[in-house]
Amino acid sequence: MTYRAPVEDLAFTMRHVAGLEESIAEGLYPDLSVELVEQVLEEAGRFASERIAPLNAPADRTGAHFADGQVTTAPGWREVYRAWAEAGWNALPCDPEWGGQGLPTLVQTACVEFWNASCMSFALGPLLTAGAVEALTAHASEDLKRRYLEKLVSGEWMGTMNLTEPQAGSDLNAVRTRAERAGDGTYRITGSKIFITYGEHDLTDNIVHLVLARLPDAPPGTRGISLFLVPKFIVNDDGSLGARNDVRCHSIEHKLGIHASPTCTMVYGDAGGAVGWLVGEENRGLACMFTMMNNARLAVGAQGVAIADRAYQQALSYARERRQGRAPGAGEGMSPIADHPDVQRMLLTMKATTHAARGICLMTAAAIDRSRLAPDAEARRKAHELASLLTPVAKAFSTDIGCEVASLGVQVHGGMGFIEETGAAQHLRDARIAPIYEGTNGIQAIDLVMRKLPLADGTTVRGAIAEMRKVGTRLVASRDEAFGATAARLREAVEALDDATSFLLKALAGHSLADALAAATPYLRLFGIAQGGTALAMAALAASEARAAGDANPAHAGRIALARFFAENIATGARGLAQTVMTGASALADAEAALAG
Amino acid sequence: MTYRAPVEDLAFTMRHVAGLEESIAEGLYPDLSVELVEQVLEEAGRFASERIAPLNAPADRTGAHFADGQVTTAPGWREVYRAWAEAGWNALPCDPEWGGQGLPTLVQTACVEFWNASCMSFALGPLLTAGAVEALTAHASEDLKRRYLEKLVSGEWMGTMNLTEPQAGSDLNAVRTRAERAGDGTYRITGSKIFITYGEHDLTDNIVHLVLARLPDAPPGTRGISLFLVPKFIVNDDGSLGARNDVRCHSIEHKLGIHASPTCTMVYGDAGGAVGWLVGEENRGLACMFTMMNNARLAVGAQGVAIADRAYQQALSYARERRQGRAPGAGEGMSPIADHPDVQRMLLTMKATTHAARGICLMTAAAIDRSRLAPDAEARRKAHELASLLTPVAKAFSTDIGCEVASLGVQVHGGMGFIEETGAAQHLRDARIAPIYEGTNGIQAIDLVMRKLPLADGTTVRGAIAEMRKVGTRLVASRDEAFGATAARLREAVEALDDATSFLLKALAGHSLADALAAATPYLRLFGIAQGGTALAMAALAASEARAAGDANPAHAGRIALARFFAENIATGARGLAQTVMTGASALADAEAALAG
Repeated sequence: MTYRAPVEDLAFTMRHVAGLEESIAEGLYPDLSVELVEQVLEEAGRFASERIAPLNAPADRTGAHFADGQVTTAPGWREVYRAWAEAGWNALPCDPEWGGQGLPTLVQTACVEFWNASCMSFALGPLLTAGAVEALTAHASEDLKRRYLEKLVSGEWMGTMNLTEPQAGSDLNAVRTRAERAGDGTYRITGSKIFITYGEHDLTDNIVHLVLARLPDAPPGTRGISLFLVPKFIVNDDGSLGARNDVRCHSIEHKLGIHASPTCTMVYGDAGGAVGWLVGEENRGLACMFTMMNNARLAVGAQGVAIADRAYQQALSYARERRQGRAPGAGEGMSPIADHPDVQRMLLTMKATTHAARGICLMTAAAIDRSRLAPDAEARRKAHELASLLTPVAKAFSTDIGCEVASLGVQVHGGMGFIEETGAAQHLRDARIAPIYEGTNGIQAIDLVMRKLPLADGTTVRGAIAEMRKVGTRLVASRDEAFGATAARLREAVEALDDATSFLLKALAGHSLADALAAATPYLRLFGIAQGGTALAMAALAASEARAAGDANPAHAGRIALARFFAENIATGARGLAQTVMTGASALADAEAALAG
Repeated sequence: MTYRAPVEDLAFTMRHVAGLEESIAEGLYPDLSVELVEQVLEEAGRFASERIAPLNAPADRTGAHFADGQVTTAPGWREVYRAWAEAGWNALPCDPEWGGQGLPTLVQTACVEFWNASCMSFALGPLLTAGAVEALTAHASEDLKRRYLEKLVSGEWMGTMNLTEPQAGSDLNAVRTRAERAGDGTYRITGSKIFITYGEHDLTDNIVHLVLARLPDAPPGTRGISLFLVPKFIVNDDGSLGARNDVRCHSIEHKLGIHASPTCTMVYGDAGGAVGWLVGEENRGLACMFTMMNNARLAVGAQGVAIADRAYQQALSYARERRQGRAPGAGEGMSPIADHPDVQRMLLTMKATTHAARGICLMTAAAIDRSRLAPDAEARRKAHELASLLTPVAKAFSTDIGCEVASLGVQVHGGMGFIEETGAAQHLRDARIAPIYEGTNGIQAIDLVMRKLPLADGTTVRGAIAEMRKVGTRLVASRDEAFGATAARLREAVEALDDATSFLLKALAGHSLADALAAATPYLRLFGIAQGGTALAMAALAASEARAAGDANPAHAGRIALARFFAENIATGARGLAQTVMTGASALADAEAALAG
């Protein structure tokens, strides 16, 4: 098997890091039990490992094929996609009113990791569909919902998000695609969109595009952008497919990775205007997008974890088979390279950072669930703020980790890692997109510092740090010697984060925006290290307690060792990052001179 | 122009970091002047930028083509290669006795950077030829030298290095290729070699393979390996080409990057045995390889700098043209993304780490020159030890930087970076091989800690640290306020290196090999940061002094700003790395448990 879904670790992390049992006890998930969650993960993991994972390498070589406006997906994809949708996986997080299973974001995030680890190119389409479902569920008219949602939820149709234009990548102010009122309540859409994931394909009979466009009388900037639903085939009143709409795929991109995911240039209105329906209110399109932003960003974070875990599994397997040299203390003959200390360091770095990122993603998912499902309004508000704070960290830290781990995976393979047929290189190529799309990681860092730190006058971030400190206190109280210097190193990391946070809150209060902007990226990394180390420590404390209570599961020792490795080898970078953050804008003071030479 | 050779910076770094003028004054380079060096760089840079650089992207798309045992290089390559060799560039570092120009390693290293920045795939062949020339010059018989060297030096023929076999990558103990004495002074070679760079191609009429093989009565392990010269065509006594030798290319690899550089599986002796000639003594093949190891590793380090600089140039150019959002303090309309603080941080990180690595490579080159050319034997011995110490740092730090910078280059491009036609992704793909070949970076780190730190009872490394401290003292003495916290941050980094060094020397003295091996990689990174920061500071101090003396060159302010950025933003990681080093083997204590789960 090329990928084994880490079901047991996901379940353990949900319980001991993301508070699954507490949430159940508090009534957030009335229909869930730990056993049911484990069952769902087990089934999802099996489908991912057995059905999807074998598609990954062949589909990378075939790629998606474009000819005459049509996109053909890789061999076997239609069959697996249909089986996957029919098994109900597409409907997992959706509203039961439209045929969804209504499972929480926490469970969905774990499954998203499985789908993406087994084949990121395959999983991307459903990820976009989930975003479309969410936007329509929250903002579409009853008629649009009735016409589209059930089939999007079942996976019979897929959805896309059309934001980017050549001149409008990160900056949606510059969107130029036009929408004109047709007088019958519909609109005519004209313009081009680029980088449209699954803009065209052969997996489903219809494709539902959500398109940002500008009305003729719209105010300039992002306050003049509206969201439209533009189906590939117009849907008749009885739900059957009608006329082909005036939208076509012009070409697909030749990319570094995710070769099998078609990235399309879409042309709207070549023949007079694509028929579109308004979603939400006119000029409020961006607000509709923001509804689903947290979820989509978290899902991309889960992609980072996913690709990292797949790269790690492959590297570990190779390192245990490949023999070179003699490891310290080994007997005669060549040792598996997994026994060499430097290779162990690489493998442990891969695993520890992957699990740290996984912990952050699941914590974020739990906060999103709480923000929606907590019985108490104040609890929902607080959870919403926490989710808002953690989301950019989950997205950017995890996707950076995805690239770093995939690169280490290549390194563990030595020369074989550079040969495409080995497969290690594909993970690096695939991973590289995740820090870019769904808001570049630089934008995530700016979002974290400029918009999330000031939430609730800074009490949200202070609260998050206070929770980290509590874990530190539990570590100090633990008598388990296997923790080594975990408590000390983690405390230093959390205090470094606290210092950097104080610096930034002060800078923001004093309107020293340049300081805050200059420090954003190292601050996000620092946050990820402190939060990720905390997540690992929470899992390790639970393992230590279980072991003390007589549970002989060997995974417990592994969890403690992993938390310790992270604290002693990765968290040690925290103080230096804080120092860099607190250099502020002076770090870039003479940037122009430095770049000019 | 897609690449502008940084001639001025190379010359400045040679003078103020690598001590060019001092070396000239001491008589190391009797035929050189600063002006002559600048002239050579100018010419090399022009050829690289104008002739080679335009080949890079098209050749990546075409790749090298294999059919029927023949390799066809990309369109235009034969012509440019011949023009390059005819202009004398291949002969630059070679012994004048064989037609070389006898220029020192310092100048050659700068040129190697230019060739590799303009097209790494193209430059790789000559890099291997240079290794073969070096091995033959030092170890071959007069007859072999007479028959082969002149044409290898002129570039009329090219050379290869055949070390790796499927079961013998990093571990040459396992070499199985056989050599039998033919009774006439020649040998018959039988076996397979993999990953042979430029093992077959159409650039030259003959290819001279240097092959590691084992005699029937050889002792086991690396003490039983001999080095053989195996030409593709046997060379007649009059220098003309004779019979085709029994060596053929079986296939070439499909790789992540350097697509246009043929990576060959070579088969020797399919038809009874390839005719080979012994180079050096029987069973002393590895010693012959080690002769050229320092140079080849340094050259690969220069590749890391090269690809980093090319990626940086492209990213900077894109960031100045691409407009998105409004930068702080900017006027109406969208700003170039180069004006956004977070993008500036990426660009400065790219440039600062690239220049730091360049400084280390040129310092290493100067030490190699001194080890050969210093009039005084004791000076040569000391320089040899310093070169030995710095070489693994030059190789590993620079090639790690190459990957990191190329990855940042993709990020600066946003979505466009992931599209192959932009070219940013190619740099990342190409860069990824350099940490692997010519001794993986893990092996470099182990070499640094296990073999180089103990040199001269630790006085070599202590001496290197003392030199770093002297630069720190000069920084403290400088009154130039533009340095900001450079002195403080760099001092902290050097003291962190000193602490980590003491820990490791003590561990080695106490035979705590596990501590040393576990800490090797973070120690090498720490060394690179301290040494690289020092190199930048040396350049900046020279710039500051020139400025104080009235030199209005704006590049001076840039050098100071760059050294400061590195100290305040990169060197800040040093203490955490030292902390990790000093965790020692306990960092990996429960590695098995942690990896088992």
